[in-house]
Amino acid sequence: MVRGKFVTFEGCEGSGKSTQLRLLSEYLDKTGTPYILTREPGGSPIAEQIRKIILDGKNTDMCDECEAQLYAAARIQHLKDRVIPALESGKLVICDRYVDSSLAYQGAARGLGTDYIESINSLAINKYPPDLTVFLDIPPDKAFLRKHGADENDRMEKQGLNFHMRVYGGYLSLIEKYPRICPVDCGGTKFETHSKIVALLKDKGIID
Amino acid sequence: MVRGKFVTFEGCEGSGKSTQLRLLSEYLDKTGTPYILTREPGGSPIAEQIRKIILDGKNTDMCDECEAQLYAAARIQHLKDRVIPALESGKLVICDRYVDSSLAYQGAARGLGTDYIESINSLAINKYPPDLTVFLDIPPDKAFLRKHGADENDRMEKQGLNFHMRVYGGYLSLIEKYPRICPVDCGGTKFETHSKIVALLKDKGIID
Repeated sequence: MVRGKFVTFEGCEGSGKSTQLRLLSEYLDKTGTPYILTREPGGSPIAEQIRKIILDGKNTDMCDECEAQLYAAARIQHLKDRVIPALESGKLVICDRYVDSSLAYQGAARGLGTDYIESINSLAINKYPPDLTVFLDIPPDKAFLRKHGADENDRMEKQGLNFHMRVYGGYLSLIEKYPRICPVDCGGTKFETHSKIVALLKDKGIID
Repeated sequence: MVRGKFVTFEGCEGSGKSTQLRLLSEYLDKTGTPYILTREPGGSPIAEQIRKIILDGKNTDMCDECEAQLYAAARIQHLKDRVIPALESGKLVICDRYVDSSLAYQGAARGLGTDYIESINSLAINKYPPDLTVFLDIPPDKAFLRKHGADENDRMEKQGLNFHMRVYGGYLSLIEKYPRICPVDCGGTKFETHSKIVALLKDKGIID
């Protein structure tokens, strides 16, 4: 059995990640590609229990380091429960957010620093790196305009624009550091972006 | 305001830690020492939510790395919520378990390794080390005999004797590495052990 490929999707709020993941799923369904689509934080029973604590709007006293550690805890459990078994059965794994989210959100935007986030995520970074990370590249000020009217309102999305600009800056630094991260310009229509993503996945040998 | 001292208690299951903490509390009450007694994992609202996930008997699928990360998450939140404020108000903080438990239980006994546990607990180890760690020293085979008949039965205590011998070995290695850890022989009566602990705290300048 050939081990499957591990592809993660990253982007700021409003980058169109959910839409692109849906379009990609439809494409993979049509082409008969064996795959799973999963997400972080959560994606397995214990990881979902952790997700609830992270996103609970009542947990306003949560310190940044605790938040970062909880993401790392949910990540490793989700890896063992869902990602690794699927890879080992030869499936393509598409994961909505992974360690780069922690580096951009907690490391850069919340100011915990890259070293700290890398140290608490050493296993994910060194032992289970993605084969490819698709970064949906749109500056948060443009993305915010596009998302205007959305009613999602969890702890992450309540942050202001400045916070999301720092997240974006964090991602740009990561692109320089990790060659596995490929930015996809998503300033065009959702179908144009989808086509770029499919072309990237073909170019990198992820799909035929 | 002089910053308070931070003292942690460590030991294997059945080492008499709960009894000794109760006797020490009574002593500190009698002598009018300003202190708080707290415990890990838990000790503050968010940390207690994390504790529930860790100790839930239904979470049998939890991987070792997730468990270690959850302990680290609860630890840092408890530090910020309870330990640091008490230290800053000049109180003595007595904490039932701290980072050495992770090093002994997850690092040594579960085999995750010291490096991994140190990396995910870097803040607790480097930024918030205890002033003194009291290790209640009794080999687990003797301690098990003493605890015979107890009906506690959470995930940690369900482990077998071999596991606890590895925990004990982990603690012995930590004593060599960290001079802040002082073993107290507790093979005698609980009152003899209590007297040794009080003498140690006086000798180290923790109490008058």
